[in-house]
Amino acid sequence: MNEAFLSGVNVCFFDLDGCIYHGNKLAYGAKPLLKELEKRHIQYSFITNNSRQTGQEIAKKLKNIGLDVDTSKIITATDFIGKYLKEKFGIVSIKTVGSSSLNDAIAFEGHRIVPLEDKDKADVIVVGRDVDFTYEKLQRISEEVSRGSLVIGTNSDHFHPAEGQKKIPETGAIIAAIQAVTGTTVQCIGKPEPYLFLYGLQMFGAKSDSGVMIGDNLETDILGGRRVGMRTVWVENNNDDALSFQHSDSDYKVKSIYELYEIVAMPHVFEKFLKRN
Amino acid sequence: MNEAFLSGVNVCFFDLDGCIYHGNKLAYGAKPLLKELEKRHIQYSFITNNSRQTGQEIAKKLKNIGLDVDTSKIITATDFIGKYLKEKFGIVSIKTVGSSSLNDAIAFEGHRIVPLEDKDKADVIVVGRDVDFTYEKLQRISEEVSRGSLVIGTNSDHFHPAEGQKKIPETGAIIAAIQAVTGTTVQCIGKPEPYLFLYGLQMFGAKSDSGVMIGDNLETDILGGRRVGMRTVWVENNNDDALSFQHSDSDYKVKSIYELYEIVAMPHVFEKFLKRN
Repeated sequence: MNEAFLSGVNVCFFDLDGCIYHGNKLAYGAKPLLKELEKRHIQYSFITNNSRQTGQEIAKKLKNIGLDVDTSKIITATDFIGKYLKEKFGIVSIKTVGSSSLNDAIAFEGHRIVPLEDKDKADVIVVGRDVDFTYEKLQRISEEVSRGSLVIGTNSDHFHPAEGQKKIPETGAIIAAIQAVTGTTVQCIGKPEPYLFLYGLQMFGAKSDSGVMIGDNLETDILGGRRVGMRTVWVENNNDDALSFQHSDSDYKVKSIYELYEIVAMPHVFEKFLKRN
Repeated sequence: MNEAFLSGVNVCFFDLDGCIYHGNKLAYGAKPLLKELEKRHIQYSFITNNSRQTGQEIAKKLKNIGLDVDTSKIITATDFIGKYLKEKFGIVSIKTVGSSSLNDAIAFEGHRIVPLEDKDKADVIVVGRDVDFTYEKLQRISEEVSRGSLVIGTNSDHFHPAEGQKKIPETGAIIAAIQAVTGTTVQCIGKPEPYLFLYGLQMFGAKSDSGVMIGDNLETDILGGRRVGMRTVWVENNNDDALSFQHSDSDYKVKSIYELYEIVAMPHVFEKFLKRN
């Protein structure tokens, strides 16, 4: 990611959790890295499968941990799903399982939110990470599907990692239960699907080969970035999974965001990096 | 199932819901069929993936709808899972998600029931159809698995049918979510796994080729019966699925329990049946 690597690059897209921040801590090197990009007139943005918070809420969080970023730079599954449905179907009636922010973001796009327990069926059921999900909701969704409602998910991740090797259930686990009961396949809009990436590229008027996707998740960030034709940088984070994955899955591999900063800012580190990769 | 068909048959195993009864109604022909078997000195028993009720509770239900059956004749996933775990591991500590009857049946076998929210980990987590299942329970199970607990399910059915083409979420849907989060494969003891069938055969001291499994579910009753080497009779019930399945999946096919009664009791119906099958 020195001159040579960055030649032809207009925009860098970063994953957030596990890449730019870890839990409630900004990744070491994130701030100088973004400064360095600004200095080189390379634009950047953030793409996250987060389905519980809007870009506005995440901007607030980033500010609290020391990073001042414009809301418009943060592309979330939460904010995007209403736009996607509007483009595909126009204004529709929607029942949701997920956070109140997900509801707000969908309503903001003009859709009509209907309570899940409402006896009238909705056109679409949007599924996000619902920490209040219950068997009863699962049964209601099963009934809605048999009445013809379309189910669509924010993201297909089965879990996200938390401190102490914990696995926190993600939207994809809820979707697994819904798919089992209904026998349908639920489409998702988050990474690795192309929609958030394409939206990001369009936002900057950039072609895919002028974009770079940087993230820690090979199955979402790297796979999805590659699929739309971007260059990809995998942030390894000393992850246990590192050994089990092929480096060939991503174009470049860095140990951390700090290493990426060094490579971008310091020519001699870039030389060494080129030899390793 | 006339003399010729029943030759060498010692015991008939019947599925319950969708076979012997439908919702709260005894299947037409069920009573005379069982009488006819008694007359011919053929034993019978019931095998169900029900994980919310014990044999005792189901016997009560059957009595209420007009069928007097001894509790010992009813083999349920609810009652069996504690026996299975005792035989495999001895007495263990167990957390459960499921009905209070499931808890009672497991405790009856001598295992130690630990509340799911208890901070000490249990040896085993038993998953049944838990109508009070929540995201929070899913997260707790994810944590238990990362601490080394074994998850085992009563039955792998994704749903069971209810009136009006409704699909009621079953244990398998909850298991799908657990498998997604934990990345593990959860073993189940219900049909089509061999355990309930083998327990039934052992109960009567019967060999598998002297047993017949009769049920409406090709994926559990018929597949499981065939796997342990029993003869199988599929009760079609004018099911919509009937067209999409191969008759070859079962040895014999009947339209209803009443038709099975006719075949067993009336030689001229059996003649016609032989020509068709």
